[in-house]
Amino acid sequence: MSENILAFGEVMMRLQVPGHELLQQASTLNYSFSGTGVNISSALTRLGHKGYLMTTLPNNAIGDASVSYLQKLGIHSTFIRRGGENVGMYFLENGFGMRSSRVTYANRKESSFNTATGEMYNFAEAAKQIGIVHFCGITLAMNDSVRVQMKSFAKAVKENGGKVVFDCNYRPLNWGENGYGKAKPHYEEMLYMADIVMMNEKDAMHILGMNTVKEQRVEQVKDLIPAVAKKYDIDVIAGTHRYINGDNSHALQGFMYKNQAFTFSEIKRFAVLDRIGAGDAYTSGIIHGELKRFEPAKTVDFAVAAGMLAHSIVGDTPVSTESDIFRAMTDSVGDVER
Amino acid sequence: MSENILAFGEVMMRLQVPGHELLQQASTLNYSFSGTGVNISSALTRLGHKGYLMTTLPNNAIGDASVSYLQKLGIHSTFIRRGGENVGMYFLENGFGMRSSRVTYANRKESSFNTATGEMYNFAEAAKQIGIVHFCGITLAMNDSVRVQMKSFAKAVKENGGKVVFDCNYRPLNWGENGYGKAKPHYEEMLYMADIVMMNEKDAMHILGMNTVKEQRVEQVKDLIPAVAKKYDIDVIAGTHRYINGDNSHALQGFMYKNQAFTFSEIKRFAVLDRIGAGDAYTSGIIHGELKRFEPAKTVDFAVAAGMLAHSIVGDTPVSTESDIFRAMTDSVGDVER
Amino acid sequence: MSENILAFGEVMMRLQVPGHELLQQASTLNYSFSGTGVNISSALTRLGHKGYLMTTLPNNAIGDASVSYLQKLGIHSTFIRRGGENVGMYFLENGFGMRSSRVTYANRKESSFNTATGEMYNFAEAAKQIGIVHFCGITLAMNDSVRVQMKSFAKAVKENGGKVVFDCNYRPLNWGENGYGKAKPHYEEMLYMADIVMMNEKDAMHILGMNTVKEQRVEQVKDLIPAVAKKYDIDVIAGTHRYINGDNSHALQGFMYKNQAFTFSEIKRFAVLDRIGAGDAYTSGIIHGELKRFEPAKTVDFAVAAGMLAHSIVGDTPVSTESDIFRAMTDSVGDVER
Amino acid sequence: MSENILAFGEVMMRLQVPGHELLQQASTLNYSFSGTGVNISSALTRLGHKGYLMTTLPNNAIGDASVSYLQKLGIHSTFIRRGGENVGMYFLENGFGMRSSRVTYANRKESSFNTATGEMYNFAEAAKQIGIVHFCGITLAMNDSVRVQMKSFAKAVKENGGKVVFDCNYRPLNWGENGYGKAKPHYEEMLYMADIVMMNEKDAMHILGMNTVKEQRVEQVKDLIPAVAKKYDIDVIAGTHRYINGDNSHALQGFMYKNQAFTFSEIKRFAVLDRIGAGDAYTSGIIHGELKRFEPAKTVDFAVAAGMLAHSIVGDTPVSTESDIFRAMTDSVGDVER
Amino acid sequence: MSENILAFGEVMMRLQVPGHELLQQASTLNYSFSGTGVNISSALTRLGHKGYLMTTLPNNAIGDASVSYLQKLGIHSTFIRRGGENVGMYFLENGFGMRSSRVTYANRKESSFNTATGEMYNFAEAAKQIGIVHFCGITLAMNDSVRVQMKSFAKAVKENGGKVVFDCNYRPLNWGENGYGKAKPHYEEMLYMADIVMMNEKDAMHILGMNTVKEQRVEQVKDLIPAVAKKYDIDVIAGTHRYINGDNSHALQGFMYKNQAFTFSEIKRFAVLDRIGAGDAYTSGIIHGELKRFEPAKTVDFAVAAGMLAHSIVGDTPVSTESDIFRAMTDSVGDVER
Amino acid sequence: MSENILAFGEVMMRLQVPGHELLQQASTLNYSFSGTGVNISSALTRLGHKGYLMTTLPNNAIGDASVSYLQKLGIHSTFIRRGGENVGMYFLENGFGMRSSRVTYANRKESSFNTATGEMYNFAEAAKQIGIVHFCGITLAMNDSVRVQMKSFAKAVKENGGKVVFDCNYRPLNWGENGYGKAKPHYEEMLYMADIVMMNEKDAMHILGMNTVKEQRVEQVKDLIPAVAKKYDIDVIAGTHRYINGDNSHALQGFMYKNQAFTFSEIKRFAVLDRIGAGDAYTSGIIHGELKRFEPAKTVDFAVAAGMLAHSIVGDTPVSTESDIFRAMTDSVGDVER
Repeated sequence: MSENILAFGEVMMRLQVPGHELLQQASTLNYSFSGTGVNISSALTRLGHKGYLMTTLPNNAIGDASVSYLQKLGIHSTFIRRGGENVGMYFLENGFGMRSSRVTYANRKESSFNTATGEMYNFAEAAKQIGIVHFCGITLAMNDSVRVQMKSFAKAVKENGGKVVFDCNYRPLNWGENGYGKAKPHYEEMLYMADIVMMNEKDAMHILGMNTVKEQRVEQVKDLIPAVAKKYDIDVIAGTHRYINGDNSHALQGFMYKNQAFTFSEIKRFAVLDRIGAGDAYTSGIIHGELKRFEPAKTVDFAVAAGMLAHSIVGDTPVSTESDIFRAMTDSVGDVER
Repeated sequence: MSENILAFGEVMMRLQVPGHELLQQASTLNYSFSGTGVNISSALTRLGHKGYLMTTLPNNAIGDASVSYLQKLGIHSTFIRRGGENVGMYFLENGFGMRSSRVTYANRKESSFNTATGEMYNFAEAAKQIGIVHFCGITLAMNDSVRVQMKSFAKAVKENGGKVVFDCNYRPLNWGENGYGKAKPHYEEMLYMADIVMMNEKDAMHILGMNTVKEQRVEQVKDLIPAVAKKYDIDVIAGTHRYINGDNSHALQGFMYKNQAFTFSEIKRFAVLDRIGAGDAYTSGIIHGELKRFEPAKTVDFAVAAGMLAHSIVGDTPVSTESDIFRAMTDSVGDVER
Repeated sequence: MSENILAFGEVMMRLQVPGHELLQQASTLNYSFSGTGVNISSALTRLGHKGYLMTTLPNNAIGDASVSYLQKLGIHSTFIRRGGENVGMYFLENGFGMRSSRVTYANRKESSFNTATGEMYNFAEAAKQIGIVHFCGITLAMNDSVRVQMKSFAKAVKENGGKVVFDCNYRPLNWGENGYGKAKPHYEEMLYMADIVMMNEKDAMHILGMNTVKEQRVEQVKDLIPAVAKKYDIDVIAGTHRYINGDNSHALQGFMYKNQAFTFSEIKRFAVLDRIGAGDAYTSGIIHGELKRFEPAKTVDFAVAAGMLAHSIVGDTPVSTESDIFRAMTDSVGDVER
Repeated sequence: MSENILAFGEVMMRLQVPGHELLQQASTLNYSFSGTGVNISSALTRLGHKGYLMTTLPNNAIGDASVSYLQKLGIHSTFIRRGGENVGMYFLENGFGMRSSRVTYANRKESSFNTATGEMYNFAEAAKQIGIVHFCGITLAMNDSVRVQMKSFAKAVKENGGKVVFDCNYRPLNWGENGYGKAKPHYEEMLYMADIVMMNEKDAMHILGMNTVKEQRVEQVKDLIPAVAKKYDIDVIAGTHRYINGDNSHALQGFMYKNQAFTFSEIKRFAVLDRIGAGDAYTSGIIHGELKRFEPAKTVDFAVAAGMLAHSIVGDTPVSTESDIFRAMTDSVGDVER
Repeated sequence: MSENILAFGEVMMRLQVPGHELLQQASTLNYSFSGTGVNISSALTRLGHKGYLMTTLPNNAIGDASVSYLQKLGIHSTFIRRGGENVGMYFLENGFGMRSSRVTYANRKESSFNTATGEMYNFAEAAKQIGIVHFCGITLAMNDSVRVQMKSFAKAVKENGGKVVFDCNYRPLNWGENGYGKAKPHYEEMLYMADIVMMNEKDAMHILGMNTVKEQRVEQVKDLIPAVAKKYDIDVIAGTHRYINGDNSHALQGFMYKNQAFTFSEIKRFAVLDRIGAGDAYTSGIIHGELKRFEPAKTVDFAVAAGMLAHSIVGDTPVSTESDIFRAMTDSVGDVER
Repeated sequence: MSENILAFGEVMMRLQVPGHELLQQASTLNYSFSGTGVNISSALTRLGHKGYLMTTLPNNAIGDASVSYLQKLGIHSTFIRRGGENVGMYFLENGFGMRSSRVTYANRKESSFNTATGEMYNFAEAAKQIGIVHFCGITLAMNDSVRVQMKSFAKAVKENGGKVVFDCNYRPLNWGENGYGKAKPHYEEMLYMADIVMMNEKDAMHILGMNTVKEQRVEQVKDLIPAVAKKYDIDVIAGTHRYINGDNSHALQGFMYKNQAFTFSEIKRFAVLDRIGAGDAYTSGIIHGELKRFEPAKTVDFAVAAGMLAHSIVGDTPVSTESDIFRAMTDSVGDVER
């Protein structure tokens, strides 16, 4: 079943130092446009759905470049409005081996998205047209105006019978000092409205202040996530555990809690080319599995494979098709495809 | 005579689309760091002086890259402080023929320089060490705090026997609505302190509100500039007239008013590779001529040749040596230098 | 008035040697996707209309890349079908000065577009939705099947009240030996259906076999074009004369014949960066002028300025907005836009 | 002993997306020219022999670029003829980790080589000058005309006392539906003429329709290859087994059957940079070993090392010298060579 | 008539800063291999002759790269020997407009060519095989050993009935202080052996010490060149006058003196992309004209057109074919060639 | 404690083939400037000290580029003199997997540094200003003049109370035949003056001719290094053992001998991006540890981490800060730093 999906969120300009030089060593940058909403909307377009993005972009050369880029990704521009003066940016220096990749943000607080007012969006119309809306904890961290927009739009979608996906995606940098305390009430409002939630045990403990006596991450998940699902009445909670090695490889284990039952994927280890945005590929896999009514085990495996593949793709935004992902779900890797 | 020269101003990150694509067409950017102060300080270093820059840059990867770049240009980093969070940026799309180049600013208001407070700089120490300080109308446009810094530092330099250069460099975008009215009192304060001023007839008419019945630009200059020099007691006023053609060539005529006499250069026509920052090369030529006590005609010719050469150099920042410029002052262009 | 515009034609992959090397000297290529239909549809999208393309692209990596690229240009993909195995290609080596640019075609005859059958397109549905359809003489040259598609689609559009634009665009290479003779009946069928035609005196003489005793090109135009308009009952006939210089500059003069009257633009001379596709910018300007009901003189000047600007833009496909073109219609070229 | 070696086959243009982007993400391509015959001829040139290629290339810019490239590789152009209109092409998107590399062919059926007629080549003259000729199953798959050329040229070489190498290289894509059935008679004709054959157990089973009760690949080889050698009277049959891992590494084991005895190399595991064409490096190693009368064990180890090194070299075509390969035959890898 | 042509001379590695940056601004270089001998041999290969080069290159990675590059240019490597340790290099910074291009030499004195001994070459064999040998004044400037090689090889060619071309190509940098005095006897020895000489009035005055009362360059040529031809018994003397403009254009006038008569071409003005090596294109045109027995006027026009085209080609080495040059001899420049 | 540190040595131009092509395959090079002295001086600048370099560079475009690059690295140019004609160069082809990286030197013997005379440096002034001087065995290998300079400068530093660091860094290529015999007396002179020495058991055995019955490298170190320290009265001797794997990873174990006690680090394994210069990062770590009076175990761990990180950085020259290195000393590698 193909669905109309809309993500609400900021478009960021990614300015990446090519290869493995530092910003202080290089003289060129590769640029593209991304953001959690962009990634989700585009990934689901590749999976056969119709993806929209609701955001604001400036009426200048940077805004024009953003829109062109989003169109290239297949995102429908119906709900993209133009205004304000800035696009949020981040500079990316690729790590190597024991040296981590590094992100430096710029120009974010003043972005068109973060300074837009709610009246500028046609929430009512969008709520009627779309079946699923995606929100993200990064957006929730921005400012009061944006938070109000998120919540009222989520409410409108619910009232029109749509579903709400909420990815906790807590970023300490965005919330500042005493961030968990500031964040909790806003997260709780979103959780009460959400049908599908991306989170793990750390979110439960740190944002929601829940406790567990377990020490292993998997045990903590098993202890805490059911309580979250029950308290906030959430249909599906899914998440991942990531393991990072010094040889440019990572490993991922996915889980999903639905109908009072857990499903865990195997731990998949894989070489990493571009890690940023891979979490959004996992989320897209979960959403797609739910839309296509896959069995939970298939959904989690699909989402992990989607996430794994996204680490092998340049850029933040997943580009794999359903058949690419099904192929990656088998354990063998093939020779050159001709 | 070699001199210690300091420029006070913002460092901008220049993000240039390579070749002639628009930002919406390309996927890579060339970056460098510049700004009027950077250009002046570096240009005078190449001419044999010791160039300093007083500015503030953030303590992150972008700040590190800026400092490395300034060091590469030969600028002494003694008076560069680190703090704040942002570097102002501009995106440059190269024009071609009848299509003008286009600049899009980003992240400027919140830059480390524009949000720094005056106490962070050691104005007193700097005023003792340097012989000449350079200020620019772009900096004057930023905000009240920066304006206070400029004026108090100019005063300190004067009190220590140093000379003040002020480049009017009025940019309508920076001053906003009713800009001339807002700008005038600040410009006047700077002019009263300045020994060398870069301006032309438009500045006199629009910023200072002066009138002339002349219609030709050269006649207007002759009419207005002596009055400015007299009113504000300025030793040297210099400027240029630029003529822009549709075939990727420009022409420049320079002038200087000193000791109640005008000197005009010939109108030099030349092919344009990179126009930005070329005005700062002219200013550097005037400063250098004054420091070396050239005759006015030699100074203006030198400054025009410096400006002309800067149009043939990639990047905002002039890199020509004194001997490069002397060679360019002759009318013939040579074959390959071996 | 914004209009739904559809172009019917092939998408070509442009593989350009960067800079000025020959294919035998270089080792990298820049690629993009274009074609007369692509250029027209995209150009009119930038001018505020809604542009569609009807074409066929293969279901492989090259087809995927084509579709992404067309979406980036803002073209609506509703009528793009997938099938067949190939995309036509051309290799471009940039000329310089006295050395002409050189195009080498590859893989064209077997392209998905040229091997598609008419049943694959939904001509009836398209004819209902669109107001103007654009066809081109290059497409007419391909093969009998494509010719049948063109003509039956043109007929369907006419029957639905839409307008037909036909660009003669005769390419000797495509028609082969005794090309004019082969081409004439097909051109005549298209001319009888067309409302707006792009042609000049050479088309009239060579394709349609008309004669004139005039020797000057402008005089020949004045002699022949009215006869063409009358015979085939064409509302608007427009075209250009191009003059090529050895210093990387060209000149263009545009003309339009409408309501039994001629309008000629001035001859505009300009530096040339990328000549390919510039003719389509002129056509787009004529179409836009007609849609917006500009006076003929304004339409021709607008079209010439659009064509002139397209020579300053990288790639085949025009990207200028209406305001860019209005600005270029003045004779002066500005300094850097900030 | 240095030998004159000629390969008969098509030159392909390789158009590779740089780095790890997909064709739909990138905008530049690296190009080079290769093909099994090119690889064999060039590899053996590096090993001290005199390599020729018999092929047809068009008389246009792409053909000129091909010839320049082949000359650069050291291939003698005596038997390269010019004619026809096309060069076969393939687009290569590099895989990463679990994501396989992907090849998309274009323009192949209509290539100058595949449309050339046999009279255009001087088979008789070539058969006199060369000691060894190399043919490949890819060429055999093309069309009847090319098959006739192959067979008659092989016959001529045999009659002049030369040796024939045949690499089975069965590609399902080229033979289409019921490919094995179509291919078998042609393969058999070539096998009857061949002195050295590259094949493995799959070729014996699928193309030749042989059966074995063994289940392990090595056991199947031991069971089937001697029967092939006997039936078709082949001096040397050699091949490899490849193992593909998800961490960008492969492993290879080589084998050779000669004088009724098998030699197997160790399984060598190695990091993979560019996998395409590495099989041709192995073939070249076998040919070189036979020409230099190495002991079988040395020949197989040499060929595996040649194959292994070819995975560490950019491009399809092997460039290693004999001493490079001898060094790689030891198990230790050295520090930087200075 | 196609001829075997050999040039004796050094191969230089050209390391060019891409675009218009200075070496101090950039971080990448484009490299290629050239030299007067390389240029002549390659240019005449494109014109249908068989070009050889006699030189020495080291047995290391740089030498391997040189040989590959020469092969790519179509130069036959029969007389290229390997030995010594270095390749001469030059760094090229492209000028723009009034800023001249700049060449910085490195590693030249110790190059394999300049340290090779004469016994290493098989002069006797080469003298038998070739019809024309080309020498250059740059080589003559290197050292005594190289000079002895040149002269003895020229003598051997003459004794075998071959023709000697000598290009004066005096470079002040190479001869050092009192250069003309040192150079004269060596130049005279070469002139006595030469059949075709490239020189102009400055060579006659400065190297040979001849005098004229004329002041115009053309008049000086007319006055001095016949005397040179007579004294040294030279069949053909040819040369050019170059005029350099500040708008990236040059102009050339060619002349030839043969059978006691002068032929002068028109002065051709053209845009300049890459000036280095263009003189060798002119020389190649003269040699080709003589070999093909063109009328003098056709030869000079052909040579000027060859030289003009070489300014539009990237790299030192001419790549134009005879038909390219014939096309450039007409005054009109065409539109895109399709 | 921050210290003034000076390194005496040659600046080399590094010309690196990008990616993994060989010099014969590519057409562009990345260039930078390095050398042991450059690396040490720059690395210690990043660690908070004030780094100087004493060297000679030519007064041409290459020398200008070198100086700009050193300034960018933060090196103070006070003791860099200009003169001579050449910069030593090396070409670097990156290895991959089992294929080693390869370095080809050029232009070294004639470099400005190696042809400078001692009077050109102000050793006396430098000896007064600096606290630590660094010398290297590569410099010691150059020629007698350079050796005299090294020794007399080392002596002057000692007499002014400064400390001498000497890195044995024996390169067989530089010393030629019977190198160890030639080198020994010069090494001994340096060792008698040195306070901190970088060496391992091979230096003791081969250069100093010492013997041991041990067979394991670590045992040999334990046997020989104390004897060296005692004989030459050296405070600190440190070194590494490197293990090279075929999968693009290396391992390092560091050791330090001080106050009659050994400290060994763990063996750290890590992925390798750019191996050249990493030894200098280790040296810098040892020097920094000593200057900051770290405990020996901390110093060795710090130095190994510095060395390990340097393998993950593009270019020869370390750029890590103290906090980067402290972070890398923990065993875990983090996710993207935001």
